[in-house]
Amino acid sequence: MAKPKIKPLDDRVVVEPMTAEETTAGGIVLPDSAQEKPQRGTIVAVGPGRLLDSGERGDLSVSVGDEIIFGKYGGNEIEVDGNEYKILRESDILAKVV
Amino acid sequence: MAKPKIKPLDDRVVVEPMTAEETTAGGIVLPDSAQEKPQRGTIVAVGPGRLLDSGERGDLSVSVGDEIIFGKYGGNEIEVDGNEYKILRESDILAKVV
Amino acid sequence: MAKPKIKPLDDRVVVEPMTAEETTAGGIVLPDSAQEKPQRGTIVAVGPGRLLDSGERGDLSVSVGDEIIFGKYGGNEIEVDGNEYKILRESDILAKVV
Amino acid sequence: MAKPKIKPLDDRVVVEPMTAEETTAGGIVLPDSAQEKPQRGTIVAVGPGRLLDSGERGDLSVSVGDEIIFGKYGGNEIEVDGNEYKILRESDILAKVV
Amino acid sequence: MAKPKIKPLDDRVVVEPMTAEETTAGGIVLPDSAQEKPQRGTIVAVGPGRLLDSGERGDLSVSVGDEIIFGKYGGNEIEVDGNEYKILRESDILAKVV
Amino acid sequence: MAKPKIKPLDDRVVVEPMTAEETTAGGIVLPDSAQEKPQRGTIVAVGPGRLLDSGERGDLSVSVGDEIIFGKYGGNEIEVDGNEYKILRESDILAKVV
Amino acid sequence: MAKPKIKPLDDRVVVEPMTAEETTAGGIVLPDSAQEKPQRGTIVAVGPGRLLDSGERGDLSVSVGDEIIFGKYGGNEIEVDGNEYKILRESDILAKVV
Repeated sequence: MAKPKIKPLDDRVVVEPMTAEETTAGGIVLPDSAQEKPQRGTIVAVGPGRLLDSGERGDLSVSVGDEIIFGKYGGNEIEVDGNEYKILRESDILAKVV
Repeated sequence: MAKPKIKPLDDRVVVEPMTAEETTAGGIVLPDSAQEKPQRGTIVAVGPGRLLDSGERGDLSVSVGDEIIFGKYGGNEIEVDGNEYKILRESDILAKVV
Repeated sequence: MAKPKIKPLDDRVVVEPMTAEETTAGGIVLPDSAQEKPQRGTIVAVGPGRLLDSGERGDLSVSVGDEIIFGKYGGNEIEVDGNEYKILRESDILAKVV
Repeated sequence: MAKPKIKPLDDRVVVEPMTAEETTAGGIVLPDSAQEKPQRGTIVAVGPGRLLDSGERGDLSVSVGDEIIFGKYGGNEIEVDGNEYKILRESDILAKVV
Repeated sequence: MAKPKIKPLDDRVVVEPMTAEETTAGGIVLPDSAQEKPQRGTIVAVGPGRLLDSGERGDLSVSVGDEIIFGKYGGNEIEVDGNEYKILRESDILAKVV
Repeated sequence: MAKPKIKPLDDRVVVEPMTAEETTAGGIVLPDSAQEKPQRGTIVAVGPGRLLDSGERGDLSVSVGDEIIFGKYGGNEIEVDGNEYKILRESDILAKVV
Repeated sequence: MAKPKIKPLDDRVVVEPMTAEETTAGGIVLPDSAQEKPQRGTIVAVGPGRLLDSGERGDLSVSVGDEIIFGKYGGNEIEVDGNEYKILRESDILAKVV
């Protein structure tokens, strides 16, 4: 899939959510829960990192291409060239699939 | 478009929102979502940056002329010489269109 | 207009709001919005600045005489010698008119 | 008026509120507003200042004898020797009358 | 009155509230107000002080024996040997009676 | 009583609450109040202390064996080998019985 | 049990909750309470630790294989290869079983 023409700010990432079929790939199922339903996706763009008090930017611990699990109710939806993406902050990412 | 005669304070920017036709330019569509509907626009003025604890001001990561995607419910609307603008904080900006 | 006999504390400023006619001067219109209706006014007194953790006071980025745009629902109203003013914190100021 | 026999803690001050007649002295009127109705009064006792992270105490920017304008809904009422006072934090003070 | 057999933690103090008769001693009356009704009492035990970020503990600005005025709705009630006390944080204390 | 086989994290402690009869021992009675009903108990395990910004851990000011008074609505209940315990943070402890 | 193919971020851990029978092993019972019902589980993966202001990451105080007690309402549920897990932050862990 082509990289979308958007560059996230701060510690945000752009994620392409998986379809329902893809989501169960590798035996991972994300059931509904009382708190928040997690989702899977692939990172397609990353921001420069959060601005620290020192003036430096903190490194992100995820990279383009990482498969991640994230909380459903975080972030904003956006559609580029017919593909749907989510813009998330790094803190909305629960785990990487390894 | 002429630059509006206002200078934002702190880490605020002045944004000229795109019209509905412009918003789908480049294949980017911003659908409604449960959280917040993002919008597109062009930055026409930037503030001096947020005052850090050190007394310095942090550089903004956007510049005049940047096309951005921002959350709909942030910021304040203002009209200058018949043009509508929004005054946003940098943290309300989700991504740059590149 | 004579300077009112009050000196704001901290990072507060005293603002003389514009009348409805003055508010549209220079082509600037401040429409109602879902968030907050901004207003225009002129700064007539400024405080010493916010006390920083270092014990110093941060410089204000506005001065007496500046025309500003500010959020309607911030601050306190006060009347001195028949003139109405608002006492605002600097963070309630959105932009300067330049 | 005699100084009341109470010493405020931290960055608190003891204020003797003005009567309705006194409040309009000097042409200052404090109208009702949607936010908070300010009041006038005279400071009769001040605390040692807020404890900073450094262990020092920050100087108060008001002194005994200062006439101040403060938000109506802050502080606690107390009566000493038949006089009514308010105990406020410095941050509840909007401005000094100069 | 004997010192109660309890030692408060952090910046807490143990206070013996005054009876209604004692409360008006010295001409101090604590009327009801819309915010919070203050009370008078005598400090009978003090904690070691709040732990600062430096690892040190901040000195309390009140001592055993001090008569204080405190907000009614702060703290916890406790009864030791038939006497009622309140355990308060120092920030719940408005002023000392001097 | 045997020490329960659990080790609390951070600045948490494990407390064995007193029975109703024990609670009045030493003349200490904990009446109901509008705010929060305190309880008595004995500390049976302590955590390593809160992680400070420096990377060090802050010393706890209570130890195993201390009798304490704590707010009723803090903490979590747990039962080990038929005994009921509460897991509290140090900040939920009001005072030591000395 | 095989380690799930997910790597938590930040100070998160992946926990395999115990079944009802396992939960009472070792005499530990976790009753319902008014606040929050704790649960037992085994840690199967740990994140790199929380990013400190210094740019370092704080060590986790739990490791893979630790049996822990955690609050029921924290974290997110996930299913990998037919096994259910919870992704928790370290602060949601109350205690280790030792």
